[in-house]
Amino acid sequence: MNESMIAEQQPSLNMGATALDFPSWMTERLARTEEALSRWVGVCAPAGLGEAMRYAVLDGGKRLRPLLVWAASEAVGGQGAATLRAGCAVELIHAYSLVHDDMPCMDNDVLRRGKPTVHVQFGESSALLAGDALQALAFELLLPEGEEVPCSMQARLCRLLGAAAGSQGMAGGQAIDLASVGKQLTEAQLREMHRLKTGALLLGSVLMGAACNARTEAQALEALTEYGQALGVAFQVVDDILDVVADSATLGKTAGKDAANDKPTYVSLLGLERARAHAEELRLQAHAALARSGLPDTQALAALADMVVQRTH
Amino acid sequence: MNESMIAEQQPSLNMGATALDFPSWMTERLARTEEALSRWVGVCAPAGLGEAMRYAVLDGGKRLRPLLVWAASEAVGGQGAATLRAGCAVELIHAYSLVHDDMPCMDNDVLRRGKPTVHVQFGESSALLAGDALQALAFELLLPEGEEVPCSMQARLCRLLGAAAGSQGMAGGQAIDLASVGKQLTEAQLREMHRLKTGALLLGSVLMGAACNARTEAQALEALTEYGQALGVAFQVVDDILDVVADSATLGKTAGKDAANDKPTYVSLLGLERARAHAEELRLQAHAALARSGLPDTQALAALADMVVQRTH
Repeated sequence: MNESMIAEQQPSLNMGATALDFPSWMTERLARTEEALSRWVGVCAPAGLGEAMRYAVLDGGKRLRPLLVWAASEAVGGQGAATLRAGCAVELIHAYSLVHDDMPCMDNDVLRRGKPTVHVQFGESSALLAGDALQALAFELLLPEGEEVPCSMQARLCRLLGAAAGSQGMAGGQAIDLASVGKQLTEAQLREMHRLKTGALLLGSVLMGAACNARTEAQALEALTEYGQALGVAFQVVDDILDVVADSATLGKTAGKDAANDKPTYVSLLGLERARAHAEELRLQAHAALARSGLPDTQALAALADMVVQRTH
Repeated sequence: MNESMIAEQQPSLNMGATALDFPSWMTERLARTEEALSRWVGVCAPAGLGEAMRYAVLDGGKRLRPLLVWAASEAVGGQGAATLRAGCAVELIHAYSLVHDDMPCMDNDVLRRGKPTVHVQFGESSALLAGDALQALAFELLLPEGEEVPCSMQARLCRLLGAAAGSQGMAGGQAIDLASVGKQLTEAQLREMHRLKTGALLLGSVLMGAACNARTEAQALEALTEYGQALGVAFQVVDDILDVVADSATLGKTAGKDAANDKPTYVSLLGLERARAHAEELRLQAHAALARSGLPDTQALAALADMVVQRTH
């Protein structure tokens, strides 16, 4: 199907929609996300645990995953309450993974989002428990009692979150990452590792957004899957580039640690220039997928793909 | 309502039901649980991770929580597919908590179920990830695609599991436990800690079993809640007693570690004899709750309460 055909069938495609003020769009969704996280995280937990959970989640982070949930949900006309909860749930999974990842037995990192990491601030045992509790809370957020979110949507969102977070998603990717330190990976192996380690939760964010409307069409789901996959790889390629070219102050975390840890990266594999070209190629793939989605307004998703590739931290 | 009234209204109460062959009942449910766990755990995970997950879960454990799910579900006439999944899900939460609990930054234990602990066998980072992946898998098991388990039941089971596992359940109790080492707790504080740390998941098992029939009546739910609460406390009291009186070989884990870690226990608080009397009192409370449930056959639940109190490891 070429573009003019789509335009005929769907007169309200991007070209027809009002141009999006992306900075304002983002500011609003971020505010709603932060407010909800602050209201939901660690509030009724025993004192020390709640504090560690809130420290791990609040006041920091780009909130890319909740923004993807919002953008995908709005593109399909998703339900608001489910969108807010899904965005916060994926962010909690992301936050817990950082807490555990930073621990001495993993990356042993002391700086995150410009602050001491959770185990430095609260001790290792509290970091371990806070991460565990954040994972449980992520699911709990998706399961409100009452009529707010239909139970079929709750189940579907939980299913997507579990798949993105578990052994065939993020945790599986981290395991491959651990096993690969000091080894020479092929590009295919590196890609598979990142497809799981970071890609699964980014794709999961897009799919959870799409699941906030139970009637999202197969054509849109397929296109959003391609978008999410391209964006996931692009994110990691740029992450690898930034680890080399940015300094720790800009990143808010320790720069250069991949090389120091002898970890295979897109930069070590492709070189800096080819890695940059690859990121741009993936950005265009993401845009092309959106154009095929049949969805009337995917401007926020497009802008997020641009942001992922063009970010400096 | 006195017993004779119940007997009149419900002619098929325990006294009417065929006497249960509890050892056979248990053997059958254990076999189904082991078979399902072996089929579901770590199978599609990346090699090293899957192995650590299976090591943590298979070939060991009393499976008390799945047995509670089976017994409660059968007492309310629950759905079979949901029961099997719920039983395995609570067992995975239990198993992940043991893996993380045994790690050097927590209890630093080297022996569990008569085998080296997961971090001793696979390294700390693999233990951390295996625990994380097991928690995600617990939720995934409750969310099969298709018609096998109605989505409203899936959502309800996930909600109960999340509440039992998270910061207001097991993880919260572990945080209180951590904060209490070396402190003198009152009986009320000790009770609150264990209500969350071990009680929440035991009660959760009973309630998840009861949730395998969407139409379980309020009277039954209330009675099963009381049963689960009494059983949860009894379990911990007996655990504390066994930590003092049994040896490591019998327990399959390091004995005497509470005293060594200067942890407050029911034995340190009440003394051995009063702790034993308290366990017996709780067993009778659990039985009394079952008698009030209005359910026709609660023999397996009663036998499990007896087993919890009379166990030697």
